[in-house]
Amino acid sequence: MAAAEATAALWEAAVVAASSTGGDSTTVFSICVFTAVLCLCLVAGHLLEENKWVNESITALIIGCIVGAFIFLLSKGKNSRILRFDEQLFFIYVLPPIIFNAGFQVKKKQFFHNFLTIMSFGVFGVFISVAIVSAGCYWLFPKVGFGKLDAVDYLALGVIFSSTDTVCTLQVISQDETPRLYSLVFGEGVVNDATSVVLFNAIKNIDITRLKGGVVLKVIADFLYLFATSTILGATIGLSTAYVLRALYFGRHSTDREVALMALMAYLSYMLAELLSLSGILTVFFCGIVMSHYAWHNVTESSRITTRHIFATLSFIAETFIFLYVGMDALDIDKWKTAKSGFKTSAGIFGILISLILLGRAAFVFPLSILSNSMSGNSEKAPITFKHQVVIWWAGLMRGAVSIALAYNQFTFSGVTLDPVHATIITSTIVVVFFTTLVFGFLTRPLISAMLPHHRHREEATGGRSTGSNSPKDDFILPFLSDEDASGSGSGFMQAKRSISMMLERPVHTVHVYWRKFDDRFMRPIFGGPRSH
Amino acid sequence: MAAAEATAALWEAAVVAASSTGGDSTTVFSICVFTAVLCLCLVAGHLLEENKWVNESITALIIGCIVGAFIFLLSKGKNSRILRFDEQLFFIYVLPPIIFNAGFQVKKKQFFHNFLTIMSFGVFGVFISVAIVSAGCYWLFPKVGFGKLDAVDYLALGVIFSSTDTVCTLQVISQDETPRLYSLVFGEGVVNDATSVVLFNAIKNIDITRLKGGVVLKVIADFLYLFATSTILGATIGLSTAYVLRALYFGRHSTDREVALMALMAYLSYMLAELLSLSGILTVFFCGIVMSHYAWHNVTESSRITTRHIFATLSFIAETFIFLYVGMDALDIDKWKTAKSGFKTSAGIFGILISLILLGRAAFVFPLSILSNSMSGNSEKAPITFKHQVVIWWAGLMRGAVSIALAYNQFTFSGVTLDPVHATIITSTIVVVFFTTLVFGFLTRPLISAMLPHHRHREEATGGRSTGSNSPKDDFILPFLSDEDASGSGSGFMQAKRSISMMLERPVHTVHVYWRKFDDRFMRPIFGGPRSH
Repeated sequence: MAAAEATAALWEAAVVAASSTGGDSTTVFSICVFTAVLCLCLVAGHLLEENKWVNESITALIIGCIVGAFIFLLSKGKNSRILRFDEQLFFIYVLPPIIFNAGFQVKKKQFFHNFLTIMSFGVFGVFISVAIVSAGCYWLFPKVGFGKLDAVDYLALGVIFSSTDTVCTLQVISQDETPRLYSLVFGEGVVNDATSVVLFNAIKNIDITRLKGGVVLKVIADFLYLFATSTILGATIGLSTAYVLRALYFGRHSTDREVALMALMAYLSYMLAELLSLSGILTVFFCGIVMSHYAWHNVTESSRITTRHIFATLSFIAETFIFLYVGMDALDIDKWKTAKSGFKTSAGIFGILISLILLGRAAFVFPLSILSNSMSGNSEKAPITFKHQVVIWWAGLMRGAVSIALAYNQFTFSGVTLDPVHATIITSTIVVVFFTTLVFGFLTRPLISAMLPHHRHREEATGGRSTGSNSPKDDFILPFLSDEDASGSGSGFMQAKRSISMMLERPVHTVHVYWRKFDDRFMRPIFGGPRSH
Repeated sequence: MAAAEATAALWEAAVVAASSTGGDSTTVFSICVFTAVLCLCLVAGHLLEENKWVNESITALIIGCIVGAFIFLLSKGKNSRILRFDEQLFFIYVLPPIIFNAGFQVKKKQFFHNFLTIMSFGVFGVFISVAIVSAGCYWLFPKVGFGKLDAVDYLALGVIFSSTDTVCTLQVISQDETPRLYSLVFGEGVVNDATSVVLFNAIKNIDITRLKGGVVLKVIADFLYLFATSTILGATIGLSTAYVLRALYFGRHSTDREVALMALMAYLSYMLAELLSLSGILTVFFCGIVMSHYAWHNVTESSRITTRHIFATLSFIAETFIFLYVGMDALDIDKWKTAKSGFKTSAGIFGILISLILLGRAAFVFPLSILSNSMSGNSEKAPITFKHQVVIWWAGLMRGAVSIALAYNQFTFSGVTLDPVHATIITSTIVVVFFTTLVFGFLTRPLISAMLPHHRHREEATGGRSTGSNSPKDDFILPFLSDEDASGSGSGFMQAKRSISMMLERPVHTVHVYWRKFDDRFMRPIFGGPRSH
């Protein structure tokens, strides 16, 4: 209630200030309220951390809602938001730190060990999910009296409701307790987001009147091209940063300059990718991975601590900002007025969308997990058990900021729509995001406890088995072994034979061993990195 | 030259992208170029660091100029800048981190020991300087054929050319080598900036037709009121942050949350001050001081390292951004076309302004230094020698971003002016900023070497003498002594007598001792801080 009174006082102050000095104060006032509410979220999130039902996203959503309601009341029903949703703001300023931080903090070994599974989930999974959601909407929407959409709009709906909310998921699954699960769900989420954005742009440009069978292939080819070029761009920028930091040895003079250079180069990678019409998300993600592998080791100790926390903090603020915004935006009365659809239609649309999300995700998680299990066969990897599959399915059901941003991008013109059909889709998206975040998010932690009751201990055991090199000790043994192999000249044939048999038995492991060799011999001397021997 | 080619390639890419997808790409392109050029500045600044003639500001200015020239050539003479100067951008996003960092990093003991001198320089100095520059412009401008200004414009000119550029100065004087000089020049710069902004706002609102003798008094009263309220607001927010961090003990859970809370609260202090029409600069400066004194000690070790560097890095990027921008803006052809004034008039205006800046600063630095010396008498403080006075005078001659921002604010409408007189003032301001930064900035390091040839050793000696408690050891002895005094009950009379004689002999020192007592007994138990015993 103290917050409410403060808001009321501020609102009065802003009204007075705005009327006396013109429009500038409105911006100042908005920033003030947002900053104050962000602080409130931080404190509330901290106080609720011990609670196993509530996470930070839910807190921010609810606080955003409450603040929106107060603004709504104080402005006498005129509006509930103080900033208009701007996809540019979201895609240019808020998303890059989140994704870069994800790449920077991800446990690279886990990520690359599960690379194939992650990619199949993140790419083919999205294709399957989009197909199911689009077809389902096309088939079911007219049955609840809502069917005036273009074919492109149905495809857009499919994409909008196929992007997992990585942010919310990460707050529920712990990287230390369940490393493999974390790596699968998180990795899928990142690739998933990227696939959605790429697919969305592809769909927007499709000429629906000349739709042929080749279009699907062309979308897939486009995706692969974008994936490759974006990855290369990200890796190149990451490597240049590492090289500059190493060659010029910045730390001699200034920690601040090192930190600034890393942050700016990371941001540059995202913006360059956007400028060249590539996927900024993928670029900045791989830039983060490369930077944490090379550049991070070339800087001073205090730069290391600072960068680790600076990126995490920025990402944290950006995430909270998004949920807060969605919470405030939910009460925007204009959209609800424009939507005009009756309660029955709205409830029908909502039910259809939720069912399709549940179905669309189930349709790829279970088959692809079984495929992944059979592919790895009796190799070193533990299979993804049915219980794990259920958790993966459930943890990816939440829809978040990317869905909202895509929906606004497709169905509004700079945050405003006058078309009742489009307004209905926007309001439905908000309701779905709210429902999935609150209800599914609320139930995830208890579900994980129920499905994986001793996951803390079990994962430690299976984790060690599944990756083959989970302990730091193994980290040092692997390259050491590979170096021994390499230095034993004359045993070329034996080495080749061993390599081939290894390759057949444990493909991912072998690739990893070769990568480590290459890394130690060629990459690290140029770009820097941890000295492993 | 590689940079030039890259810029050319990017420009082509941007033109293609902008024409195919609309206006959004222009923003992306601008951000890209700015980020890339910022990176370039960082590397160039690093490479030139050993050079005693060039500092980071000069590097950024020159690089900005070169990039501006290339954009000018590539756009075939149409424009030289890719972002329009926006005072809002400057005052809302760029300035707060610089000033907060200044407060956060300043050596508090030195600052408060020289408090009276700093305040007299920063407040009365500016008043004297404004009077001289305004009167000089009024008297001399018609003599070079330029005299169509209102009385308010002359006063505005006085304020614009009286604000020292703290940023550039700090890069030249070292806090470790010459602590007292640094503290005087830096402290003056901050107060100076604040006084200028406050004075400027006061002048804009003056009804010049009803100008009476009381106006000057009213401006001074306004200033004192603003100073007091802004300081209180900043200190209150800083203390609340410290209290929250201490009471909830954030570090138990998350470093990122601590860092985010500190950064957001600092920003909130600035924005709240702006919202309440106080001086954001002063508020955020004192918030920084309070946070570094209390809040910083309540967080985990890694939060301490992170916050120290995160604020320094943000400030560093913001500073480089400003100089880069000014460099790029210098070649904006529209303004030069609009200005229309002949070479003779331009040269005359430039000469007058530079002379007035030199004179206006000399008119308060030397008298006020002598006053400060005679005030402290034969107390513990070393007098400000004539050589120090010359360095103080010289180091404050540079004009920078605040001057530019105030000039744009007064003489343009969102960065554009069609009035030739106003355009002339804008171009003159840019030329003066350029000249002072390049020429005066260029000569400052050699001047300091010449005036204080062994300043490294001398300052250590006088520094120790002047503050009385410069070494960390003294830090611990002082409160220990004062506590002994307090615990020795019954010796009240002796204590009072000693206090009074101390007060008469060494007023600042005594205030400091009492402050330490108060701090240890009441403040630190509530708000946290270093444990001194």
